[in-house]
Amino acid sequence: MGELMRRYWHPVGLSGDATATPRVVRILGEDLVLFRDGSGKAGLLYPRCMHRGTSLYYGRVEQRGIRCCYHGWLFDVAGHCLEQPCEPNGGERRHNVRQPWYPVEERYGLVFAYMGPADRQPPLPRFDVLDELADGEFVEADDSSIGSGGPQVVPCNWLQHFENVMDPFHVPILHGSFSGMQFTNAMASMPWVVFEETDRGIRSTSLRTIDGRTFRRVTEAVLPTLRVVPSPRVGQFARVESIGWTLPIDDTTYRIYVAGRVREHGELGRMRSRYGGKTWFELTDDEHRAMPGDYEAQTGQGPITFHSEEHLRLSDRGIAMLRRMLRTQLDAVAAGRDPIGAGADAPSTIRLDAGNFLEP
Amino acid sequence: MGELMRRYWHPVGLSGDATATPRVVRILGEDLVLFRDGSGKAGLLYPRCMHRGTSLYYGRVEQRGIRCCYHGWLFDVAGHCLEQPCEPNGGERRHNVRQPWYPVEERYGLVFAYMGPADRQPPLPRFDVLDELADGEFVEADDSSIGSGGPQVVPCNWLQHFENVMDPFHVPILHGSFSGMQFTNAMASMPWVVFEETDRGIRSTSLRTIDGRTFRRVTEAVLPTLRVVPSPRVGQFARVESIGWTLPIDDTTYRIYVAGRVREHGELGRMRSRYGGKTWFELTDDEHRAMPGDYEAQTGQGPITFHSEEHLRLSDRGIAMLRRMLRTQLDAVAAGRDPIGAGADAPSTIRLDAGNFLEP
Amino acid sequence: MGELMRRYWHPVGLSGDATATPRVVRILGEDLVLFRDGSGKAGLLYPRCMHRGTSLYYGRVEQRGIRCCYHGWLFDVAGHCLEQPCEPNGGERRHNVRQPWYPVEERYGLVFAYMGPADRQPPLPRFDVLDELADGEFVEADDSSIGSGGPQVVPCNWLQHFENVMDPFHVPILHGSFSGMQFTNAMASMPWVVFEETDRGIRSTSLRTIDGRTFRRVTEAVLPTLRVVPSPRVGQFARVESIGWTLPIDDTTYRIYVAGRVREHGELGRMRSRYGGKTWFELTDDEHRAMPGDYEAQTGQGPITFHSEEHLRLSDRGIAMLRRMLRTQLDAVAAGRDPIGAGADAPSTIRLDAGNFLEP
Repeated sequence: MGELMRRYWHPVGLSGDATATPRVVRILGEDLVLFRDGSGKAGLLYPRCMHRGTSLYYGRVEQRGIRCCYHGWLFDVAGHCLEQPCEPNGGERRHNVRQPWYPVEERYGLVFAYMGPADRQPPLPRFDVLDELADGEFVEADDSSIGSGGPQVVPCNWLQHFENVMDPFHVPILHGSFSGMQFTNAMASMPWVVFEETDRGIRSTSLRTIDGRTFRRVTEAVLPTLRVVPSPRVGQFARVESIGWTLPIDDTTYRIYVAGRVREHGELGRMRSRYGGKTWFELTDDEHRAMPGDYEAQTGQGPITFHSEEHLRLSDRGIAMLRRMLRTQLDAVAAGRDPIGAGADAPSTIRLDAGNFLEP
Repeated sequence: MGELMRRYWHPVGLSGDATATPRVVRILGEDLVLFRDGSGKAGLLYPRCMHRGTSLYYGRVEQRGIRCCYHGWLFDVAGHCLEQPCEPNGGERRHNVRQPWYPVEERYGLVFAYMGPADRQPPLPRFDVLDELADGEFVEADDSSIGSGGPQVVPCNWLQHFENVMDPFHVPILHGSFSGMQFTNAMASMPWVVFEETDRGIRSTSLRTIDGRTFRRVTEAVLPTLRVVPSPRVGQFARVESIGWTLPIDDTTYRIYVAGRVREHGELGRMRSRYGGKTWFELTDDEHRAMPGDYEAQTGQGPITFHSEEHLRLSDRGIAMLRRMLRTQLDAVAAGRDPIGAGADAPSTIRLDAGNFLEP
Repeated sequence: MGELMRRYWHPVGLSGDATATPRVVRILGEDLVLFRDGSGKAGLLYPRCMHRGTSLYYGRVEQRGIRCCYHGWLFDVAGHCLEQPCEPNGGERRHNVRQPWYPVEERYGLVFAYMGPADRQPPLPRFDVLDELADGEFVEADDSSIGSGGPQVVPCNWLQHFENVMDPFHVPILHGSFSGMQFTNAMASMPWVVFEETDRGIRSTSLRTIDGRTFRRVTEAVLPTLRVVPSPRVGQFARVESIGWTLPIDDTTYRIYVAGRVREHGELGRMRSRYGGKTWFELTDDEHRAMPGDYEAQTGQGPITFHSEEHLRLSDRGIAMLRRMLRTQLDAVAAGRDPIGAGADAPSTIRLDAGNFLEP
């Protein structure tokens, strides 16, 4: 799965996280150092200095790159070694070595990295729902793991969360009856659902009837990890407001970066779940147990759940389709082909169908 | 050893621990969920819901069983699936699946579970010393690990504790001289001891002389884990007052459940060791080191001691006999036979010899 | 490497650490119990009592040795079993068994242990710089890990520290520019350096020019782990003041014991590094990152660094020589020969060259 994940761009921080202070970030099981040099370029380097292995976290960011504290080797954002001050003449063979690095690009307030093979690097995709803004709208980024229903860093495998996107049936149970009404009345009834493959992932369409009209809710799971989920509070009937990237920190932890259209700063952060006026962090252990939400349901499956112990049923069809699509992409990578949405020929813009719609 | 242990009933909690609030208990290396349904029946289920693996700890206890928070499957105390609300018609094939469960029974204020093969399930045994009560006596249960000399959950292998029951020689050293007089003068002298096999375990008889009369103290180690130890404070000369079940939580932790005849509520709890007026929890690290008791001696052997490094001597004969008896039972289980005191034909009542007796 | 280390004496505590209170010490990956019997002899025993495995940490120190708390076996400082009080006649065969032990000797305020083969035991060496005292000088010992630039117990492999002794080039970078001027102006310029093999380790000679005169600084890495480093603050021009033993606690932690010539009690301890008036312990995480020193540079290489990822250059010649010498000694031990400075014929006194010297 790691090789498949590496064929796509992943968010590694807010743009504001890349500064003159080196920052350790963990992505796909690797610890890396994120920084921004004096000319404004963000860099993502392997943390162990290639000379003697000291962490560049203790390095000093300068105009042209980051300098290791131990013997002063200076590296630019692409890992080139610019200075070796303890060597005669500043290191005449310094151009023969290079610090391991990954390419980064910034968009929608996020820093993205590509950790796969260089010759298969896709363009960093744009999304219609974040590019086509109405008057007064702008795009804001959030790193608080909106949608996990819990803390910023969630202690379970990312797929346990991602599958939840294709599981509309849990909504009336977990969110509609179990812990009181977490969302809205419109969501509390059992929907009629269609799951479909798209050219980018799996799409679910949930149909409910409201006052004699059809409430159509479309949710998408876009490969590799994108949750495209309209607001479950259904404040308006409209195309999806935001995209969430489920970042696998490693096999047993994940976090979510979100970018979305807003009209006020901080609007995304206010989407975080609240139970009885309390945030997740303010609940007692007893309240977590008595009022479980997505966090409890998903981490309750353990650090990595056992598919071998599951008993999937008709209502799990979306999950089965998502797993099958992932398995097909794993086979493609193993066979030397590009998985969907990846590779040098991948589309540079993705149009999405998700949203809450009220139909006549 | 795990297979042998599974051939017997073990306590998994006080009766009061089984309630409408699910409780995670750990027994023989397994985490399980204990609860009591609305009709009053206690249940012990595998915690991962068989549908998608979410922990039933987050479930809701109802009249007929426990309901998983994620998709609402309802299970009764024997693991039958009663409802699958996300499925068409409530899940027409729900009777084909069953959540893993263990049978439980309640007695003497404790909930017992049997985790072995169904066709070899023994009756939950009764004990004469807990059934034959004098006027004013009643049976009380305690979960504070009386006899461990330490905390409720003890960080070492259960056998390190259980062997101590057949080690009367340590009493005058560890409890009689090392840490001051932990018990009574009667126990501080080196006894003359006979060890014997019984049909249920090993029995030690320690003889001492008090004022020209013979003080006979009989202690029993009953398989699989029962400590049958008369009060070491010898407040009276009588048959044993209580039975302690040494529960292997897993290979490196254990706890003790006790049931005993008392005349006042809380009488058992007052038996807990005290040194200089302090409980074990109130001692400083230096005091633990300077005044070691059973807890320090047994956990001081490490999480799992190394028999290969021991040098047993004549005074260790009871320990050797107990190990040999356990080994014989391991062989019996491996050969498809029932170990002593187990199997469908096991006795339903056990009579015990233990006590402090003063003889003419 | 462990077998090589065991061919030498290592410090295991200050002399004041060996008392009537047993103390657990960890050396070369082994936990041992250090104590001093009633006659004043220090002892270092394997902690698990050879009888039933209880830790002698809970033992009682007596005139003739240490007594296990569980069954009262008494051992002297050389592991002989003197009493077995639970056995008939006090244990008639007690002379047939022996608790594992290591020889210890005391010198320079430190307790040293030899953990290697008995027939290859070298004399505990003396050092000229600690034996030849000027008027008013005396030798003092310190256990605060002077020279690590960090806490008493340092969480990385000892070799990462020991190599730093043969790395004079890092001084003007790490200590001279990166974190402000940690030492003195004399040390802040890049030196001209010669590395040489000696009969006891590797010696570096750094030459700098001060006011037209030659400042010659000689540092030695003496096998197995001795740092012989003149004061980097260069308060005087003189032979080296102290010796530091880099004790491998285990593969991923080390500490440093120092003995040195002083004129006032506590003089060694005042050598500990300070940054902006704060000790290492008082710095915030941000200050550690912004002002790295030896601790950050060496632990920043990870618990055990990867030589396979390094790129050594000309300025790393001293490190390469030290590694080669260690490898030669590993080969010697493997071939059944004595490594340098070890074996029964090892020199009893070592003369050192290290110091800060000002030459005409």
